[in-house]
Amino acid sequence: MVRSRMASMLSISVLLLLLLSWFTPISSHPLDPLTPAEIATVRRVILSSPIAVSSASFAFHYVGLDEPDKAQVLSWLHRRPPRRALVLARADSETHELVVDVGLAALISDRVHRGAGFPILTLEEQAAAVSLPLSYPPFVESVRRRGVALADVVCSTFTKGWFGEAGRARRRLVVACFVAGETVNLYVRPIEGVTVLVDLDEMRIVEYRDRVAPPVPKAEGTDYRASTKNLPWSKPGAVLQPAGKGFQVDGHFIRWSNWEFHLSYDARAGLIVSLASVHDAQKSTSRRVLYRGFVSELFVPYMDPVEEWYFRTFFDSGEYGFGLWASPLQPAADCPANAEYIDGYYAGQDGKPVKLPQVFCIFERNSGDVAWRHTEFGFPGQLIREVEPEVSLVVRMVAALGNYDYVTDWEFKASGSIKVVVSLTGILEVKGTNYTHADQIPAGLDPHGSLLAENTMAIYHDHFITYHLDLDIDGSNNTFVKSKLKPTRVTGGSVPRRSYWTVVREEAKTEADARVEMGSVPAELLVVNPNKKTKMGNAVGYRLISNSAPAASLLADDDYPETRAGYLKKQVWVTPYNKSEKWAAGLYVDNSRGDDTLEIWSQRTIENTDIVLWHTIGFHHIPYQEDFPVMPLLSGGFELRPSNFFESNPLMNSSATGQVYTTCTCIA
Amino acid sequence: MVRSRMASMLSISVLLLLLLSWFTPISSHPLDPLTPAEIATVRRVILSSPIAVSSASFAFHYVGLDEPDKAQVLSWLHRRPPRRALVLARADSETHELVVDVGLAALISDRVHRGAGFPILTLEEQAAAVSLPLSYPPFVESVRRRGVALADVVCSTFTKGWFGEAGRARRRLVVACFVAGETVNLYVRPIEGVTVLVDLDEMRIVEYRDRVAPPVPKAEGTDYRASTKNLPWSKPGAVLQPAGKGFQVDGHFIRWSNWEFHLSYDARAGLIVSLASVHDAQKSTSRRVLYRGFVSELFVPYMDPVEEWYFRTFFDSGEYGFGLWASPLQPAADCPANAEYIDGYYAGQDGKPVKLPQVFCIFERNSGDVAWRHTEFGFPGQLIREVEPEVSLVVRMVAALGNYDYVTDWEFKASGSIKVVVSLTGILEVKGTNYTHADQIPAGLDPHGSLLAENTMAIYHDHFITYHLDLDIDGSNNTFVKSKLKPTRVTGGSVPRRSYWTVVREEAKTEADARVEMGSVPAELLVVNPNKKTKMGNAVGYRLISNSAPAASLLADDDYPETRAGYLKKQVWVTPYNKSEKWAAGLYVDNSRGDDTLEIWSQRTIENTDIVLWHTIGFHHIPYQEDFPVMPLLSGGFELRPSNFFESNPLMNSSATGQVYTTCTCIA
Repeated sequence: MVRSRMASMLSISVLLLLLLSWFTPISSHPLDPLTPAEIATVRRVILSSPIAVSSASFAFHYVGLDEPDKAQVLSWLHRRPPRRALVLARADSETHELVVDVGLAALISDRVHRGAGFPILTLEEQAAAVSLPLSYPPFVESVRRRGVALADVVCSTFTKGWFGEAGRARRRLVVACFVAGETVNLYVRPIEGVTVLVDLDEMRIVEYRDRVAPPVPKAEGTDYRASTKNLPWSKPGAVLQPAGKGFQVDGHFIRWSNWEFHLSYDARAGLIVSLASVHDAQKSTSRRVLYRGFVSELFVPYMDPVEEWYFRTFFDSGEYGFGLWASPLQPAADCPANAEYIDGYYAGQDGKPVKLPQVFCIFERNSGDVAWRHTEFGFPGQLIREVEPEVSLVVRMVAALGNYDYVTDWEFKASGSIKVVVSLTGILEVKGTNYTHADQIPAGLDPHGSLLAENTMAIYHDHFITYHLDLDIDGSNNTFVKSKLKPTRVTGGSVPRRSYWTVVREEAKTEADARVEMGSVPAELLVVNPNKKTKMGNAVGYRLISNSAPAASLLADDDYPETRAGYLKKQVWVTPYNKSEKWAAGLYVDNSRGDDTLEIWSQRTIENTDIVLWHTIGFHHIPYQEDFPVMPLLSGGFELRPSNFFESNPLMNSSATGQVYTTCTCIA
Repeated sequence: MVRSRMASMLSISVLLLLLLSWFTPISSHPLDPLTPAEIATVRRVILSSPIAVSSASFAFHYVGLDEPDKAQVLSWLHRRPPRRALVLARADSETHELVVDVGLAALISDRVHRGAGFPILTLEEQAAAVSLPLSYPPFVESVRRRGVALADVVCSTFTKGWFGEAGRARRRLVVACFVAGETVNLYVRPIEGVTVLVDLDEMRIVEYRDRVAPPVPKAEGTDYRASTKNLPWSKPGAVLQPAGKGFQVDGHFIRWSNWEFHLSYDARAGLIVSLASVHDAQKSTSRRVLYRGFVSELFVPYMDPVEEWYFRTFFDSGEYGFGLWASPLQPAADCPANAEYIDGYYAGQDGKPVKLPQVFCIFERNSGDVAWRHTEFGFPGQLIREVEPEVSLVVRMVAALGNYDYVTDWEFKASGSIKVVVSLTGILEVKGTNYTHADQIPAGLDPHGSLLAENTMAIYHDHFITYHLDLDIDGSNNTFVKSKLKPTRVTGGSVPRRSYWTVVREEAKTEADARVEMGSVPAELLVVNPNKKTKMGNAVGYRLISNSAPAASLLADDDYPETRAGYLKKQVWVTPYNKSEKWAAGLYVDNSRGDDTLEIWSQRTIENTDIVLWHTIGFHHIPYQEDFPVMPLLSGGFELRPSNFFESNPLMNSSATGQVYTTCTCIA
């Protein structure tokens, strides 16, 4: 569920109106996101093209880097790839895929998309849609009948999904409304029972229904602002780094300890980590680990089949844009006081660049954990105790998709590990109900949710965050390996032990071999470079370690949302690298019909070739009262851990930051 | 595997020789661990008793608090329970269970244990055992034949387990030896192929065998001390808390934010958290959550059936004492600079109190995460962005059981959550081998491990850490509930949606109902108080959330180690509270035969009664080269999260610490 934030973005963002020039500055790296000047160039090129000029309506839905092919990126020092932008636009109710050569300031390709699905919704059209009910007489009457002041009503956009409708689809979404009034926590005060259907291309209400009218939940106890409380929120201690920060920001490259990676913003993906390499002190060389990593899709289906809820099966990336809804980060709160911040830029519906200030933060974490330790009691008269405190580097983006806030972290460790964490916080999506106590729910009736407050049913739902992880372990050609643990009988009888387990390596030959429902069999999952071995002869690799309980989709195979997100029956997929396969649920997800998903592509051979690992962190969310009115952080994640990548523990060969911190006990 | 550390403990500990007095000071709380004075009283009482006086040999194997029954503890303000010590001692080759009334300075019970199993090994007898080979001519000859200097040899104790031997057992263990020499990392330089069997009661070598002699792995590249490296380890930034610490230590009680709990040390369990209660600001009262929580057992079976390895199935708590092997924590390294430390005391084999300095640390963690947040884009012209940074309280102990170091954390959050983390670090247990490259291993031959360095095979193994969690959710009588997620078909056809999931609550009536193999079916696991409801009518509870992949024992049901640790086929068990059921693998684990385990007790009803949750964090450990010569931290854990315990998110009603921190950007 998503609220249009166009209005507030206007007030907090700086619209950069840049002088248009025939010369677009050359970006420093092929993967750098489009600069404001480049976005302006793209706009100028397209608006002056026949497509825009001849169309009665024209809107930019997505403007982003048209990423060069991997081979070009990896060899760009020799030959700079052309700088190109991908634009998804709507012109006279048709979707165009446009490619602009930014350097040449030329439109080089225009393809009309005739398949299923539409591009990301623009913020502007959502802002327009949510204002429609407020001047729509039947809605005004519905509000009046419920005794609510129209001035307190705030509406929000809900994609409608696809439920088997045949023929040419229209761009329609549901606008649902809420009551703010004495609280800013509008989501917990739904105007339930009302369905407003908006046609986005016509920008008008095409269906209206007021079916039931349970009471609007009360405002009391729902506001979450510190200013409404007597108590101050806790403030963390500050981290003192007398020697300064241990990382450098050089353009879009971040360098810290033994790591180097490229960081870029995209309106759809949000935070993208590219070209992550780790320095190997033993080999005195930098070695590739991750070519690109980002959130490919975020699917959130709700579990109430009632008329106002059955369609709530949101693809937050493909329908809304995970990056477009990023929240500017609040210094010393969203990130610690020692963080640095990076801005992002997206294109508005009119193609103009919009600044998203402080969209990423970067900081060194001093968690209080150790990186490794050992105490040796074995030598008489000696206490050998060696401990290295852990310092890691965290890169963070927060996407606030309407009610929910997703905190997404990439944590780099000097041990060579990359930890990915996604944390859920923000506000539940609740349904208005007549119930004011659980005892009123008739036995045998499924409430489809948890009664969290009077008239407030928080509906069961899932969150599936799917990562695109284009691992390049010490080179491009990799193989996916399952190291299965096999229980074995002892034979021979020379010892009284009867059983043990051993490891059976299975190399995945095809995509089908690499689909894994995690937890179903004990196995370690690795991406190895079969062409590189350690001195001892072990295949160089990284393994995927889950840090949360696996969750798969529980929807029926013949259900429409499942058709659109069938890849969620497995937590792991592997595909051969293909520049165009970035989005697990497809490029055009709004009203998609499941014909361009990870599940559909996935029929090829993947052995000793350039492969991409897809991994989903899932949460089945049964709401509890503590999740109301704002939920405390709930986290899940995974670790990519070097596994025979190094010859030995790299912490033995380098210090985490290359500098010495003061460890004064600075407690006042 | 465990090295005797008696010698080094002598050098770092202060043996407190206290004046014996007829008056033992009354401890401030019934769950406080025995004080040095109390241990001294216990010693005096027992050594002057006929059991000790009439025995030719007498050794204290365990001295700890004989915990009063829960009812007495909870009502002690009204009536102080007698202060009692439990002593497990060996007198003339018999095991005695002795109870001493410390206040009366009287022995009140003496029971000879005639069943299977022996108490924890003493540090002193292990120190004696490991010195035996060094003067045993056949061993000296074995060492000489391998070209190793006897002065470089360090030996270590390995419990022998039980493999079906009938009749009266003897206290025997294997002493295995290593070569230190140019490295302090003795564990990676085994003298392989030699088996030394020691009878502990006779304290002599009773069997000796030198079967094979692969080369001793080289020392180069194995030392882990900073002093042997040119690079300094990283040092963390210091946390600045200008307003001082947010927690108070009051005797053994810790108070922080909305939490209060009791912290005590036990030679077997290590860190024990008791009487954890959370203050509910809405109800203006303190509410019970966890009566007692501690590591009940730690089982580490190795997976090589060869003569020198098949028996390596260690119970680190029941055989060695998880608390006895705690490492003194290194300030500003094991814990951050803003930590406080607490000492522990155990009794030596002679009954005298021994101080274990800085056995626990307590600190406020400023991880850089948020406790909750929300950005609201829905109000035109406003950016509402409310963020509470997270501050939590961590209590830590590190047990260094020979080669492995286990970092065990209890983290308390103002949200009401308790997070438990166990992290593995330290050194792998490796087998000497002739192989110097993986290609030399014949196809079809199972190496039972990973070749990590020349002549160095790190054997596959598991780590199973079982927690005893006596939850008392808002009172003693609780019920274990599985909230199963049930895929459901949509019927009726008024909407095109075809499926959803709903929640089916199953209350466990008997212990059999409550055995859970996590991950086998999607379900949330809760402990609820069926006698308490929220205002909305939801049963007050906490749920168990796993933060790591579930791992169960893969040993065959008819194998002896499995008989001794059969509870490891499931990750969750629930038992009715019984003061004597503290140890998952039984009270006497050395040479145990599986007749006193969680699996054996577990046949009773558990509905709406005082219940204990047992949860195992498991790791199947396939070693990788990065684990050598010391492994980087590998973590697993779980969260106990309030689930309809509070009426709403408690963070809305209190700040985490009740004080305001300075959030200055203190970067120099």
